[in-house]
Amino acid sequence: MKPKGAARYLPILDWGREYRGQTLASDLLAAVIVTLMLIPQSLAYAMLAGLPPQMGLYASIAPLLAYALFGTSRTLAVGPVAVISLMTAAAVGRVADAGTMGYATAAITLAFLSGAMLLAMGLLRMGFLANFLSHPVISGFITASGLVIAASQLGPLLGVPISGHTLIDVGRSLWAGAEAIHGPTAIIGAVSLVFLFWARKGLKPLLLKARLHPRLAELIARAGPALAVLAAIGIVTWLRLDEAGVRTVGAIPAGLPPFTLPSPDLELWSLLAGSALLISVIGFVESVSVAQTLAAKRRQRIDPDQELVGLGAANMAASFSGGYPVTGGFARSVVNFDAGAATPAAGAFTAAGILLAGLFLTPVLFNLPSAVLAATIIVAVLSLVDLSVLRRTFAYSKGDFSAMAATILVTLLIGVEAGVVAGVALSLLLHLYKTSRPHSAVMGQVAGTEHFRNVERHKVVVSPKILTLRVDESLYFANARFLEDRIYDLLVERPEVEHFILMCPAVNAIDASALESLEAINQRLKDMGVAFHLSEVKGPVMDRLRRAHFLDDLSGEVFLSQYEAVAKLDPGCAKAASAAPREETALAR
Amino acid sequence: MKPKGAARYLPILDWGREYRGQTLASDLLAAVIVTLMLIPQSLAYAMLAGLPPQMGLYASIAPLLAYALFGTSRTLAVGPVAVISLMTAAAVGRVADAGTMGYATAAITLAFLSGAMLLAMGLLRMGFLANFLSHPVISGFITASGLVIAASQLGPLLGVPISGHTLIDVGRSLWAGAEAIHGPTAIIGAVSLVFLFWARKGLKPLLLKARLHPRLAELIARAGPALAVLAAIGIVTWLRLDEAGVRTVGAIPAGLPPFTLPSPDLELWSLLAGSALLISVIGFVESVSVAQTLAAKRRQRIDPDQELVGLGAANMAASFSGGYPVTGGFARSVVNFDAGAATPAAGAFTAAGILLAGLFLTPVLFNLPSAVLAATIIVAVLSLVDLSVLRRTFAYSKGDFSAMAATILVTLLIGVEAGVVAGVALSLLLHLYKTSRPHSAVMGQVAGTEHFRNVERHKVVVSPKILTLRVDESLYFANARFLEDRIYDLLVERPEVEHFILMCPAVNAIDASALESLEAINQRLKDMGVAFHLSEVKGPVMDRLRRAHFLDDLSGEVFLSQYEAVAKLDPGCAKAASAAPREETALAR
Repeated sequence: MKPKGAARYLPILDWGREYRGQTLASDLLAAVIVTLMLIPQSLAYAMLAGLPPQMGLYASIAPLLAYALFGTSRTLAVGPVAVISLMTAAAVGRVADAGTMGYATAAITLAFLSGAMLLAMGLLRMGFLANFLSHPVISGFITASGLVIAASQLGPLLGVPISGHTLIDVGRSLWAGAEAIHGPTAIIGAVSLVFLFWARKGLKPLLLKARLHPRLAELIARAGPALAVLAAIGIVTWLRLDEAGVRTVGAIPAGLPPFTLPSPDLELWSLLAGSALLISVIGFVESVSVAQTLAAKRRQRIDPDQELVGLGAANMAASFSGGYPVTGGFARSVVNFDAGAATPAAGAFTAAGILLAGLFLTPVLFNLPSAVLAATIIVAVLSLVDLSVLRRTFAYSKGDFSAMAATILVTLLIGVEAGVVAGVALSLLLHLYKTSRPHSAVMGQVAGTEHFRNVERHKVVVSPKILTLRVDESLYFANARFLEDRIYDLLVERPEVEHFILMCPAVNAIDASALESLEAINQRLKDMGVAFHLSEVKGPVMDRLRRAHFLDDLSGEVFLSQYEAVAKLDPGCAKAASAAPREETALAR
Repeated sequence: MKPKGAARYLPILDWGREYRGQTLASDLLAAVIVTLMLIPQSLAYAMLAGLPPQMGLYASIAPLLAYALFGTSRTLAVGPVAVISLMTAAAVGRVADAGTMGYATAAITLAFLSGAMLLAMGLLRMGFLANFLSHPVISGFITASGLVIAASQLGPLLGVPISGHTLIDVGRSLWAGAEAIHGPTAIIGAVSLVFLFWARKGLKPLLLKARLHPRLAELIARAGPALAVLAAIGIVTWLRLDEAGVRTVGAIPAGLPPFTLPSPDLELWSLLAGSALLISVIGFVESVSVAQTLAAKRRQRIDPDQELVGLGAANMAASFSGGYPVTGGFARSVVNFDAGAATPAAGAFTAAGILLAGLFLTPVLFNLPSAVLAATIIVAVLSLVDLSVLRRTFAYSKGDFSAMAATILVTLLIGVEAGVVAGVALSLLLHLYKTSRPHSAVMGQVAGTEHFRNVERHKVVVSPKILTLRVDESLYFANARFLEDRIYDLLVERPEVEHFILMCPAVNAIDASALESLEAINQRLKDMGVAFHLSEVKGPVMDRLRRAHFLDDLSGEVFLSQYEAVAKLDPGCAKAASAAPREETALAR
């Protein structure tokens, strides 16, 4: 059942009423696990976005509370994510220099714009905008972004300074800085990377062997990054590696998230608006797909339009509390779900956990090496990279494959935003191309019946005076001109034809462009001396045509059935065909 | 019959073989009339584009020859037209100052880019790109451009300097220059305007009364602008009005068109590329629609892809001979047709006529007042303005109306290019919105039959274990997510359901996004404990699904018919329903 009234817009009214002690325990446990996972992630993704580490923590507090109030998924874990952090870096990097106050302000403003757009789309029920992102574009984009992110993190992993947000720029700066690789940093980075990759698969079986409870083993394995972080802090502190030149997170100001405001500079807004829209839509699509998958597992439902409101509120909250754009994260939500989160309260408890970390844990994080954070990012994003989807999509549809390949190539070589735009443009083009040539067939009467079939596939009787064309698609602007061309081509080849019948049993709609084409066809057929008829027009289409006076000008008639049309326009031929020996095979389709 | 072989790409091989003396006479007569009409038009449109008058003449020579070689319409009259001239002014005005050499070079480069794009679209058979321009967008754009052009010509008509390409800019500069209205200029302008408006309707009856042959009367009436031009030149020369401050065309360098080259500056190319694309597509759509209308009157055919080549060659020719972007003009082509033009040779003869005018007539044109040219433009473009189409489109479809209204408003207030882009974007959005919510219905079995119908509209039998949904649309990226939502909503409300059947008799295609959705639905239904079945899948769709391994993972089965599905999944219910007394009304639809 869809929640009604206020609960629709404030889902907490729905689940809050049924909150029980058992639910509290589940939510608390899930929150602890997710907090352990989120602390290093929030620092790492802030680094990826080119922002100071505390902004990652701030983006993991207020936004989670806002989503808990307004979101409809019970298990979605909102916060900074890799792809959106990369997109933030690309967008903000265009308007400000990394490390400046303007850069942080631009990121905050981006969160504000993105939040405002998501809220507007949610309140205006414009979630359908996300439909522009076809699956090949999304999955191509995620894969390509993952590769770009992984490559860019080789910099901090090896202690080499990196710039740029494309594979070419990153590769170039890696090449230029290859000599500057910092030994101790590279060793820490490589060891963390190997440990984290191993921990994804190897840690859990080991813990099971040590007779841990399977669920506990699973959860500890998920906390692998937290373990790596703790071990690295210990080693750096013990060996004083920071004095040996290993870059660490350094001083994070302890305290509550600050109250911040987006920049009021409208020029900055217009520079960031396009990026904010892309971030909103991509964040929404990714988030909803995770939320829907998890909801289905418990036969719950989410409301995509209300999800827009939830994510919009989360981004607004981020912009007012020193954060940057956030969305629902895939890996984190799965952990939240597996750890037993039962309500959005788990998210609120996670926010409390991060708040405590920000208040008391920052001195501990001082010696956390950037190389370890880079390793956690690389491991996280490489799990999103799926090149096998290219092969599968190629086998299924060449058109979809080319949209995906274009998205990947443009994202890798030109940039994340150009990649999405190119992919969307190409999928629209291909869709338009496909529907611009609808299936159509010249029809004839099956001997011994009153049925009509395609002349090319069946033995049928055709009156020389009549040409009948069936179109198997709604008529709209993309195929209106095709229809005109097709009809003229057919008629120019058949100078003996006196009546043209457009058979419309599969036409669900006729838009104004197609109506204009029908009017042009009617006029031009009149000039040729051919009468224009319609047959088997659906009721709603007929109602609409009546509003347009097209029928008043029509040189021919509208027939309920195709047989009726032929029987009136060439009675001799129709009767002879009906009376002929029945052609059984033609009706088998 | 479509021409085959070389004649397909060089239509002159087709019509040239059959060229006769009678055809020559018809073509020559048409060429004389069109030349008389084209001389003032080419000067006027060059002025509208902000270019020196001779560039209008040059654009009416080589491009006509090129189209005669490559075009497929026998009667299309190519050359400078009003809307494309306005678009040229808007595009070139952004990159250079009017009156400078750079301005002329940019216009030449624009013709080159537009020609190259048209050629590329023609050779790659990409004419379908024109489908992006829905009819409401085109007609809204033409109407709004006509209004902007007419307003902008009030400047030269009254002797007031004008700047800008939007209604607001034009209005502002008219307001600012109102005191500077030049009396003699305004009188000449007003008189020409009244004469030309009258000549459109009143001249022909007058000539008929004077017992002229109707066809001759028609042709003289069409030459109204040429008469006005001659009279104005006479009056200005006689009264020495140029010395009184009436602006005239002035010295036009006599001679052959010069050989020119587009600028090799790639930055200029990238600045002009978007405008060139819009000019190409709009010019093509307008031109093809005129060509098709005229061809139909003589039961001839044109080939839209080859038309792209013809117009591309014409624009290329313009760029190499001192011209600017051209296309097929509406009024001029109708005159050419009515005057009896039988082959593209008429265009070549017109080119010769303009060439002669450029060689010998320029001294005569020295005293031609700009106000008269402005009047010819105003009369020509106001005939394109059709506001009644707004009312008609509103009555037919609110969606199409809003695309049209947006195109008109943005064109008037922001600019021609923004207008087209806004219109195209809005029509795509609306199309996506409409198809993103396809019609779907829960199905039940009609008692006493093996037929299934919508449960909301008919009395049918529904098994509590089975939920069947029929979708009446192909599944693609725009509606894939809608389908997911719809299915989850239905299933969450019906916890007793064990089998879900997607009934696909109207699904003509499933793209990769929809396939991904079906896979997600399959997986999530499995998590809910519901088996996912398909029924009545069309052959080609089934073939494609087999390539995707989706069927291997499907938790349920694929049934040929819906009855077969229900008979297997709930035999008791299916048999009871079939055996029940027949429910006749439900089958009436």
